[in-house]
Amino acid sequence: MCLNEGIVLVADTRTNAGVDNIATFGKLHMFEKPGERVIGLMTAGNLAVAQSVVSLVREGLENKETGQLETLFTTPSMFEAARLVGRAVRDVHARDAEALAERGIAFDVSFIIAGQLHGRRMRMFQVYAAGNFIESSADTPFMQIGEHKYGKPILDRVCKYDTPLWDAVKLAMISMDSTLRSNLSVGPPIDVAVIRRDEVMIALQHRVTEDDPYFRSIRDMWSSALREAYRNMPPPPWADGHVESEFERALKAKR
Amino acid sequence: MCLNEGIVLVADTRTNAGVDNIATFGKLHMFEKPGERVIGLMTAGNLAVAQSVVSLVREGLENKETGQLETLFTTPSMFEAARLVGRAVRDVHARDAEALAERGIAFDVSFIIAGQLHGRRMRMFQVYAAGNFIESSADTPFMQIGEHKYGKPILDRVCKYDTPLWDAVKLAMISMDSTLRSNLSVGPPIDVAVIRRDEVMIALQHRVTEDDPYFRSIRDMWSSALREAYRNMPPPPWADGHVESEFERALKAKR
Repeated sequence: MCLNEGIVLVADTRTNAGVDNIATFGKLHMFEKPGERVIGLMTAGNLAVAQSVVSLVREGLENKETGQLETLFTTPSMFEAARLVGRAVRDVHARDAEALAERGIAFDVSFIIAGQLHGRRMRMFQVYAAGNFIESSADTPFMQIGEHKYGKPILDRVCKYDTPLWDAVKLAMISMDSTLRSNLSVGPPIDVAVIRRDEVMIALQHRVTEDDPYFRSIRDMWSSALREAYRNMPPPPWADGHVESEFERALKAKR
Repeated sequence: MCLNEGIVLVADTRTNAGVDNIATFGKLHMFEKPGERVIGLMTAGNLAVAQSVVSLVREGLENKETGQLETLFTTPSMFEAARLVGRAVRDVHARDAEALAERGIAFDVSFIIAGQLHGRRMRMFQVYAAGNFIESSADTPFMQIGEHKYGKPILDRVCKYDTPLWDAVKLAMISMDSTLRSNLSVGPPIDVAVIRRDEVMIALQHRVTEDDPYFRSIRDMWSSALREAYRNMPPPPWADGHVESEFERALKAKR
């Protein structure tokens, strides 16, 4: 989420190549020079491709215009940072896509990159497997990659550009919990990073484990609140009347 | 949902072939001979394929073992009804799949069939595009086809085999509402059918329109309840402490 008060990045750490090959890998990578730049890069999709891209943007990719080796520590803007990720994806594609295709494996990867450089705007981009990208806006202040659908309804309803930063963290936990419950291939620990606007440093970087008391209480409270809300809602009025008459009609027909 | 008290079937009516070609088609088809059989068939995926299958199971498909023309009005059991749908899918596949593949269109279709024949068990099956199928159980009393992920978290949390029938209708409305909000290609009106266990007839068949007062109130109440539940939850305790200290550390470093 890229909000008025800052940026909240949340990622699970589960990767799987089939249900019997589940492991924990960080998918949230922070690039920080406090006071100069702070960038978070999150990955989804094919782990080998994602890790290659992260390595390239960390270790450097040649900028063909300038001849310089560029990394996420040297890009002059967030826009150039997103372009660098896009170039890295295309670089990996050029090297690996054919071999992957031969084995029937899709070149399936996506990224969210968000952050701020000193004196510049806070920005967030979603980078696609083709290396192109879109930017978030005040109208659409959140982006999701990977298994995103289960957690989207609560974000659609509650996430606004002016949502306070710590409420946004809470919201991200709730959204992630919905995904954890509905898809076993998404799992804790959950990595969280928070960047306050114009601080140009990591405000919080925290790994939430399965037995984190706060996360457990959020999960329990959310479940209880949903069940209670559902219990408190009235049954459909068109149901009872209609059913009675249908049922009565049938009873009469049988007599 | 196939529950202790009966069956609840809910389907939207939106079909699209791209965002500018949206139309309303029923995707819930009832086959009823009161007192003898009641079967609901729901479809998802390629509309042309789905409609062909529905036509075949309505008008009849030859059973190669018996030489008889079989329809959902003549199958001797729910299991045979599910097999009939499977055979119909394979029949359509044999005729259309090659032409579809030539045009790059996937043979993408799925079905839920649920109901009861007089003196037999109430059963629900999900039929895949390959014509094979799985059955629901008391442990997994609900099935979803089509755009199912947005509406799944609330079902995962609340839908149990002993959920009362009218609560289940309410729950289906809430689940459908989450999907409507997050995916524009799913839209009202919403078709609802309810079958009570051992009644062997349709207890309720109702089309819920966009301006149905009950559906509107459910949508509003659910949104308010979610927002309130989210507001009432505490912010992460590891956030404030951590952030203060990080922030203070930075302030000190700057001084």
